[in-house]
Formats: sequence, C-alpha cells, structure tokens
Amino acid sequence: MDGTIRCGANYVPLSPISFLERSAVVYRDRLSVVYGDHVRFTWQQTHDRCVKLASSLATRFRISRGDVVAVLAPNIPEMYELHFAVPMAGAILCTLNIRHDSTMVSTLLKHSNSKLIFVDYQFLQIAIGAIKIMSKSTSKVPQLILIPDSGELSGQPMPEIIHYNNLLEMGSLDFEIKRPIDECDPIALNYTSGTTSSPKGVVYSHRGAYLNALSAVLLNEMPSMCVYLWTVPMFHCNGWCLTWSMAAQGGTNVCLRAVTAKAIFESISKHKVTHMAGAPTVLNMIINAPAAEQLPLPGKVAVMTGGAPPPSQVLFSMEKLGFDVFHSYGLTETYGPATVCTWKPEWDNLPLETRAKIKSRQGVNHLGLEEVDVKDPVTMKSVEWDGKMIGEVMFRGNTVMNGYFKDIKATQESFKDGWFRSGDLGVRHSDGYIELKDRSKDIIISGGENISTIEVESVLFRHPAVLEAAVVGRPDDHWGETPCAFVKVKEGCELSGDDLIAYCRENLPRYMAPRTVVFEELPKTSTGKVQKFVLRQKAKEMGSLTAKGKSKL
Amino acid sequence: MDGTIRCGANYVPLSPISFLERSAVVYRDRLSVVYGDHVRFTWQQTHDRCVKLASSLATRFRISRGDVVAVLAPNIPEMYELHFAVPMAGAILCTLNIRHDSTMVSTLLKHSNSKLIFVDYQFLQIAIGAIKIMSKSTSKVPQLILIPDSGELSGQPMPEIIHYNNLLEMGSLDFEIKRPIDECDPIALNYTSGTTSSPKGVVYSHRGAYLNALSAVLLNEMPSMCVYLWTVPMFHCNGWCLTWSMAAQGGTNVCLRAVTAKAIFESISKHKVTHMAGAPTVLNMIINAPAAEQLPLPGKVAVMTGGAPPPSQVLFSMEKLGFDVFHSYGLTETYGPATVCTWKPEWDNLPLETRAKIKSRQGVNHLGLEEVDVKDPVTMKSVEWDGKMIGEVMFRGNTVMNGYFKDIKATQESFKDGWFRSGDLGVRHSDGYIELKDRSKDIIISGGENISTIEVESVLFRHPAVLEAAVVGRPDDHWGETPCAFVKVKEGCELSGDDLIAYCRENLPRYMAPRTVVFEELPKTSTGKVQKFVLRQKAKEMGSLTAKGKSKL
Repeated sequence: MDGTIRCGANYVPLSPISFLERSAVVYRDRLSVVYGDHVRFTWQQTHDRCVKLASSLATRFRISRGDVVAVLAPNIPEMYELHFAVPMAGAILCTLNIRHDSTMVSTLLKHSNSKLIFVDYQFLQIAIGAIKIMSKSTSKVPQLILIPDSGELSGQPMPEIIHYNNLLEMGSLDFEIKRPIDECDPIALNYTSGTTSSPKGVVYSHRGAYLNALSAVLLNEMPSMCVYLWTVPMFHCNGWCLTWSMAAQGGTNVCLRAVTAKAIFESISKHKVTHMAGAPTVLNMIINAPAAEQLPLPGKVAVMTGGAPPPSQVLFSMEKLGFDVFHSYGLTETYGPATVCTWKPEWDNLPLETRAKIKSRQGVNHLGLEEVDVKDPVTMKSVEWDGKMIGEVMFRGNTVMNGYFKDIKATQESFKDGWFRSGDLGVRHSDGYIELKDRSKDIIISGGENISTIEVESVLFRHPAVLEAAVVGRPDDHWGETPCAFVKVKEGCELSGDDLIAYCRENLPRYMAPRTVVFEELPKTSTGKVQKFVLRQKAKEMGSLTAKGKSKL
Repeated sequence: MDGTIRCGANYVPLSPISFLERSAVVYRDRLSVVYGDHVRFTWQQTHDRCVKLASSLATRFRISRGDVVAVLAPNIPEMYELHFAVPMAGAILCTLNIRHDSTMVSTLLKHSNSKLIFVDYQFLQIAIGAIKIMSKSTSKVPQLILIPDSGELSGQPMPEIIHYNNLLEMGSLDFEIKRPIDECDPIALNYTSGTTSSPKGVVYSHRGAYLNALSAVLLNEMPSMCVYLWTVPMFHCNGWCLTWSMAAQGGTNVCLRAVTAKAIFESISKHKVTHMAGAPTVLNMIINAPAAEQLPLPGKVAVMTGGAPPPSQVLFSMEKLGFDVFHSYGLTETYGPATVCTWKPEWDNLPLETRAKIKSRQGVNHLGLEEVDVKDPVTMKSVEWDGKMIGEVMFRGNTVMNGYFKDIKATQESFKDGWFRSGDLGVRHSDGYIELKDRSKDIIISGGENISTIEVESVLFRHPAVLEAAVVGRPDDHWGETPCAFVKVKEGCELSGDDLIAYCRENLPRYMAPRTVVFEELPKTSTGKVQKFVLRQKAKEMGSLTAKGKSKL
C-alpha cells in the first residue's frame, strides 16, 4: 500500500525468545523457577542465565544456526533454561525421553545430528552408553555436558566432563542473541514416542512455538503471574509448549524431578499452584494417594489432561478434592494439545455422568490452530455433525509441525490435500465438538462391523474393579476379528473374565463386547500410552477363537 | 530443514478473520453482540451476517482486494460487524470520527480513495454534505449505504439510498472469504485525530491486528466469554483492537450509541459487564454521576484508561465504586495501547497517593510489542533507568503500523533508525517502567529550564476545585516562555488565579509554577484530548508577561 514499508520498526520474526526478554523487564523480580528447598530464580536471573548459556554455546562450542543440541533430563530448572538458551544461540533443541535406553538414545543422537548433549546426572550412564555405541561407527559423537543437580554427583567426580555451571561461568551477558531470520526457522526437534512405528523427528518452528504458547495460555485460562506445577515432562512436546507460555505470562515454574502424589500435594500447598497438567495416570496417582498425603488445596487448581478421556469416577474424585479437570487432545505434530473440550457454563449443573460424557469429548480447536475437521480421508468430504459418521480427524494451521526431519515422504503423506492427517478416527457432534473413536490402526472389524475400541474401553473403565483396560482385535477365522480385552484389576478387587464379559454385554451391543479377557499389567510407552501393537501381537498369537465357517456367538 | 515443507496444512496468514470463524463454532450459541432492548446476536449469527455482508460487498459492489470501505457510525452492532465483513471481502476498513464535519469527511474520503461509505442515520447529513463537496471536483464519489438503526429513520424515507439490511438480504452464505495473501496486507486505515497537525492515514495489517488483539486480551486479563462494554469509540484504533479481541475470546459486546453515566451503570448491571475502557472524561462521568444513577456493580469491572494518567482522586472514587483502573499508553500508530502499567501485587497495600503515583506511569510494553525504550533521538542511546533523564519514547514490533498512507516521507521519518518515534518525552524508572513527561512539542523552556507540562498539570489536578487543566508556554521576552494554565473549575467551586498560583508554588519548584491562569472551557479533539495547539495560539496572542531585560519573578 502506498506509503508503507516493512522494516525493523514494524516487523519482528515471532519467537518465544521475545517472551523471556520482556519478562526480564516486566516480571524481573518475580519468581520464574523454583525447585526443591534451595533453587529460586527471578525472571531477570533466568534471562541472564539463558543469555550466558547461549553465549557459551556459541563462542565455546561453536554452536551456530541450525545446529541441534540434545538434552536428557527430567523437569529440573536447567531443562527449563535450555528451552530458551539453545534457541538464543540460534540452535534447535532436541529433548530426549528419559525412559529411553542407550541404544535408542544413540539412534536419536545420530538421526538428529546432535552436536552436544546435556545430561542430568541420573541419566549419565545411559548417555555415556549411547555415545559408546555411536563411536563404534563414527568419530562424530556429540560433546557431553553434565547437569549435576545442585552440585551433587552420585558416584565419583568426573573431572573430564564439562559441567552445566562451567558454561554459565564462561558465558557473557553481552552476547547478541541470535533471533531467527525467518520466523518459520526450526526451534525444536521432538521425536514421537512411537506407539505404532519407529520414532519420527517432528520439527517445530519459532512461529509455531510462539503462537502455540499463547494459545496454551488462553486455553488454560492462565492469568499473568500464575503458578504452574511441572508434572507433564518437558521432553514431551516441550511440555505442551507451556515452557514458553510461562515466560509469556511471567508465571512461576515449579519443577519436580519425580512425580509422586506426595510431591504434587506438597508443591501445590507450598507454592500455591494454580495450574498443572497430567496424563490420566497422574490423575489416578492423585486420587489414589493415601489420605494423609492429600493436603487441602489453597485454591482451585486447573488440570489439563490428555491422552485418554478421564473416566467419570476419576473426574468426580478430582472435583471433590478441588481440581478442575479439562480434557484436551493433540499429537506431537500439533505441538501438544490441539483441541480442548471448552466448557460451557450451562453444563455446570448437569449430572456427573453426563458431565463426564461431555468432558470425554476432544472438543474444539484452540485459537492458534486454524481448523480441525473430521473428514473422509479419500474424498476429503467433512462428515455430518451427527455424532455418528466416522471420519479421520485432520488439522490445519500455524501450530502444525514443519514436517518430519529427513523424511520428506512421510511429511508429504501426512500433509496430503493440505491437511495434517492425525490417523485418529472420530465423529463430530451437532455442536461441532469432536469425539475420538479410535486410531485408524486400532479399530476392530468384526463380522463387517466397525468396533471402536475406545467405546469398549470406556465401558470397561466404568466397572468398579477395573483400574486399566485396553482392547484390541483378536484374529478370527469366522468373524475376521473379535474384541479382546487386556485388563488390570484394582488392588484388593477380584474379577473373573466371564463376569466382565457379562457386564459388557449389559452395556454394549453384543458384537462389541469382548470375547476374550486377559488380566495382566499393560505395556506402556514412556509417556504412559498403552502400546497396543504389543497387545495386538499377543492377541495374534492366541489364534482364532472360532473355527472357520462356524459361529459360536 | 531437510524433510520439512511450508503448505496450507501448516501455514495460514494471521488474520482476525480466523477469530470469528472459530467463534462461530466454539461459541456458536453464546451472545456476541447486544444493543438496546431488542438486538441480541449469537456468534454464529454474527459470523453469518458478516459473511453475507462480505458477499454483497464483493459481488454487488465489486469491492475487491485493496479497496477502501469507509464507515461513519457510533458503537452500534453494524459498526462491529463491518470490522469483519469488510476484511472478509478482502478490503480495508476506514472508520471515520463521528465528530468530523462534512469538509473533513470529504477530505478523508478523498485521501483514502474510499469506494463505499456506510453511514449511521444520525450522521447522514454530514455524509451527504461530504459527498456534495467531493462531487464538485470529481465524478468518483463513494457509494453511500445507510445504517438505519433498527429500521428507524428520522425524517422522510429516502428510497434512493441503499440500506444496510439490503446488503444482508442480497448476501450469500456460500461466499468464499478473501483471506489476506500476505499477512502484512492492510486491514484498516485509521486517520489520526490531529492534535498537532493534519490527519495522517495510519495503515494496520492483518498480522498486526491479530497480534494486537491477542495482546489486548492478555493485557486486559480477559477470560473467555467475558462481557465488554463499548465506551471507547470503535472508530478510534478499531476500539483499541478489542473489536477483534472479543471474537477471539467469544465474549459479549455490549454496544452503546451514546456514552452517559446512566447507560454505563445500567449496562453493567443488566449484562454483568466485566471489562470496559475509557478516556479520563469517561471516568469523570462515572464518579460525578448522581447517586441515583450509580447502581451497584454485579462484580469487579476492569477499566483500561488511557490518554492521561488518572488523578488519585479519580482513582480513589473509582475504586470505591468497585472499578479496577489500569493505565495504558499508546498511539494510533501502535494500534492503541502499547504499554500498560502492569500492577504488582505487592503494591496493593501502599497508601492511595503512592498507588496513584505508580498507576500514573505508562509502564511496560504488552506482549505483542517487541520493545519500548526511551532514547536520545539523535544518538539513539537509551536513557539511564533513573527516573530523571528525559528522552523520546520509541517502539519496535509487530504491532507498529505499516506506515502512513500516501506519505512515504512521513513514514520514513517516523521509522528512522529502526524505531517508531512517538514524539513523546519520558523517563525510565529503576524498575524499567516508563513515565511520560511531555510531547516534544508541548515542553516549555523557561529561562533555559525544561518544564514538563504534564507535571504541572498533575499538581493542578490535585487541587480540589480543579476539574480540568492544561498548561502551555506563553512567549516571554525575558524568560523565553513562562507556564500558562488553562483551567476549568468544578461546578459550585470558586477559585482565583492567584490562589491557584500560590498552591502550585507550594507544590512545585518556583520556575515550574504557572505565571498565568485562564479559567475557561478547554478545546478538545473528537477523542477527548485537549487541543494544545489552540491554547498555545491563545497564549501567544496574550504577548509577553515581562518586558525585555526585566525580571519580575
């Protein structure tokens, strides 16, 4: 438009780095990070520490634009700082899952071309093992930097290893931060946990991280100076991007090395936590904690949950304790939560069962994600908003990944027709809210009927003696597949397979009720998701329940 | 980065249009706009009306990308709708000040190349007059569309004029919204009110509007589904961008044709308003309302004020009524508020006078604005954070305008050295908070000393009999200039010039106290700002107070 120009005065590439730079002024004396009894930083201190770290990375370790820096650590202050320090050096942060073994860590270090790896002392042996594996086939192994956690080191000191604090000491506050040149430049590389296949490297951009962090603030209704308890691993989608959100709002990060019910209640009470998040396992941990550990809450605590819909019993028990549970849904590819079951005030007075049913929906897209839809993956036509017609859940918007690192084919497939295909199957209700039915890979086809394993599982969860349950298809010569339930019973409860099948038949169409029940511990990924592919293998090994051409149903 | 791509699945140009499209689903049955006793729209209705309007603009009036559509209307629902409908047609919204006369309107219609003008029935004669003036020199006059306000028309019907509702009726819901191709494409053209010079056309972009709207949500601490009372004109910086913010949060817009204390209190009570904003004149209106009109508030009401710092008496009275006043500062060029005096909880218990003093600061930049600084305009060096060293307030970030329409020279001057120069003088306190001292043009130089007129005015405001005050320099043969105060006294109060001068000398260094006091009504711009250039002219006409070479001080 005539008279206008684009210049440094009116255009700055979006980056979460800006959040920290602003908080260092606006919230300079407010607590940024607290940890244990001794670590308490202000936003100015956190800012200064990050600048110094970035300076050391750039000048001492020659980290420059586009380099990858890995980290293997739990939710400790250093892990938080690296979320800013690494991007400030122009580099890309690759947070590794702390449940990985040396082999997997070596695979990911190699795939990511990591130049450095920061390692928490607890995981030092894993990292050393990984580097040993790498050094067999290449001389290019990443430099290891130890995070000793408050100066303590288990075992003997290892002077040959550089410590995190050395970087701080070497760093300079005069360092000129390397902001992204293009706001779509990468900021993070997150390997998927691999419920179905080998890990893929999901690339996040500065723009996506900025917009998702603000969206997370809004969807969590986080006011400025809120207090966030870190129960979701920061290595998982950068803590659903809340690492950056907290800098935007000048809140306080309460760090926890290990998540236990005791630590959760004590932290809430001590630091007046206002927000937290957690997979259903964390909610279970809270409600099943011994009464003595269940300290009264100082105020309402909002809890964002994801992964699986919270069963009504869990919801009810959480509410009784003073927690407000919100259900969200997303994937690593969408920077964590992409939809949330936005609560309508008029639902407040519905009976618990109805509320739980509504809360179990995945809901609607957050502000940063342009659009979510349920579509026929072939014709790309949207399903009817009838709560019945099943389609694939798809996303579109600025908070969808840049792609899979070094795998352009997988990137192109997942973005076919201009939408990111989640691989999840769902329906759309008349109010526009999405409800998941299954993973495309998980759905059972029995006698030509589609069976949503999520629906069967939700009935199993309602049984008072069931703690955990997962349903997969068992191959069948007659039916094609039949539902097979893997169940973990609550401590002190007894339950027979026949009783559970009878219960399911009372609450489900007959063809949907499991025909097989196996009681055992469920195999899980490091982020707490059930590994259905393991169960499917087990069910396969059981063989067919009915002989060919014969129906026992 | 290897394996990544940019496509429709992961990149969408930022635009406030997205807010409305999302709210049409997420908040579909919630109230979007209420007005008077009869108008109540939901977000789905607002969305559908805007799509239909956009469709009519595009198909019936051939409005296309880059065209300008003007509007002359108060805060009515149609004014709100045009903030989305016009951009949805790919066009640029130009909101005109309703206090302008036909001559000024004709100048702006011509300068902006407006193709259409929407006119509220109250301002029809102004618009018709403007078009008459234009048609004397050109055949290209904008098409006029009348907004009759609920079907009512004062005077006789005018069948030759197209009505707003005709566009709705002609419109189609199938219209494909014209989103910006580049997110920096213009969305609005806002003419400055011209306190000092002729109006300039400030260009806003989709990107800037999107980011500023989200920043406004955060700086106002607006939760989803909040209720906003429209006391700030939407024609002023698009209502400080809150027109778009409200769509982002699915809130309710309470529209008001005319701002009176009665209407404010009634609206708050009826609609449970949570947020509003207003120039100091609006605050004065509230606290000086008759007791019978001051209905009790249903809850805390947050009020963002701007323009001038609220005097402690005003603050105190507002707080007693249940309002929470925040002070912000910005310019048309920064999309409205750019800084806000972010409140620290530890200030809650300070004495009122101290709190008022802190609240009068302009504070710190909001989240969308990258940086604010106080700099020497020549060397570009930042001032010390000592609360004393005066410099020019400068801004940098994505919520700074694209430039001045058709005035590249003014654009380049204002962006010199990569910062937007506000023309305001200020200091920076040790906590990083900014405090304005004066407009560069307003500062008085007396006997070689700089006198901040804002400081003199704040002392005048503290006098219990003073309602309004403005200080300018009166030319002086000996001193160069001396301070001259124009004062409006509160109803029922008496005050002499000598008493007021004596009062100032008790509270200010002698050289800063006014030497002349004039009691009269203050001339103001349409947005309520005092027109100091008019007062300066008056002071000039008074002539020198002291003869050359003689000092009477």
